[in-house]
Amino acid sequence: MAQIDIAIPLFDGVDELDALGPFEVFRNAERFGATLSCELIASSRDTLITASHGVRMLPTAALDAKPWSWLVIPGGNWSRPSLPGVRAEIELGAWTKFISSYYSSRVPVASVCTGAMLLSAAGLLRGRKATTHEVSKQALAEEGAVVIEARVVDDGDIVTAGGVTSGIDLAFYLLTRWFGRELADKTAKLIEYQRGGEVFREGALRSLC
Amino acid sequence: MAQIDIAIPLFDGVDELDALGPFEVFRNAERFGATLSCELIASSRDTLITASHGVRMLPTAALDAKPWSWLVIPGGNWSRPSLPGVRAEIELGAWTKFISSYYSSRVPVASVCTGAMLLSAAGLLRGRKATTHEVSKQALAEEGAVVIEARVVDDGDIVTAGGVTSGIDLAFYLLTRWFGRELADKTAKLIEYQRGGEVFREGALRSLC
Repeated sequence: MAQIDIAIPLFDGVDELDALGPFEVFRNAERFGATLSCELIASSRDTLITASHGVRMLPTAALDAKPWSWLVIPGGNWSRPSLPGVRAEIELGAWTKFISSYYSSRVPVASVCTGAMLLSAAGLLRGRKATTHEVSKQALAEEGAVVIEARVVDDGDIVTAGGVTSGIDLAFYLLTRWFGRELADKTAKLIEYQRGGEVFREGALRSLC
Repeated sequence: MAQIDIAIPLFDGVDELDALGPFEVFRNAERFGATLSCELIASSRDTLITASHGVRMLPTAALDAKPWSWLVIPGGNWSRPSLPGVRAEIELGAWTKFISSYYSSRVPVASVCTGAMLLSAAGLLRGRKATTHEVSKQALAEEGAVVIEARVVDDGDIVTAGGVTSGIDLAFYLLTRWFGRELADKTAKLIEYQRGGEVFREGALRSLC
């Protein structure tokens, strides 16, 4: 398996667990020999982000630190439109440009929670199978995605997950897809995570564990 | 139910999800009317912490911001003794003093993952029923705790959880204990969390969901 360099964008109003759940899963997988890296990115390493529940944090890398080979886009504050978060980032447009630019260069993109709305705004989800947090499923469908009821939806180069903690399952699913079940199982054991739910892939629902 | 003010200490080498999992659960519970507050604490609001997977973050409050009514102690880096984390904090002694001082004033204490080793070092766990991450169960037993095989162990004024993601279940368990099942269920739905596993309480294992 070639090296996979994963970037998870941070922005004001990002949901802490949307970003840090997959981040910690991926970083732990490195301990078991997964040939990957995972960084939380923002415009610079000194860009202080205030997340949706109030945690202030710094990214681990600048957005141009590497040519990323996978993006994982978190959500946040969709249901609180007056606060910073996904809706404000769609208005600003920098992350949607970043996403569409990478995706046009054949870099696959995943999302957690209402991060799917950023993929949709970047033009990636029209006619594509996807999921998102319960609160944004209707909006996602109205923008042209085929919304599937599953914890994770694998549509090839676009993989989306449901709300918040589904992002942890997304990360384990991607580990399984990239490196096989044994490595994903070892990593789940390390963080004592109880996987569950289903992934929709190739027309059918399959167990995530 | 009286107001519950929860403090979760941050320190260098703290496991990101040990701290942020319960934090986000508790903060979300406020949306459904739970009479609680939850803060990530360090010596001051400007104390920058580098967590065990490399995230740099700031606390949301100073440790003396309020008289806390519950402490939730996270773990981190127990299995990597040369790195900052629980072992270094036991050496330094500030958090163990903080914990034992609060506990002697009848403030109940919970732990996530290897945070139980801080409770043990603070003298709280001798002869008490508790759990911790798989990697520190033997050490915890050797220090005199009665280690129970359960995701969460409720020993009254001391409630401990297993590794990393068990902290999310601990938070839902405490919400149920404090405010009832309906509020815990609503909060779990908001972050789309699939609860599972068992709590040991009053001599028996019971389902966590």
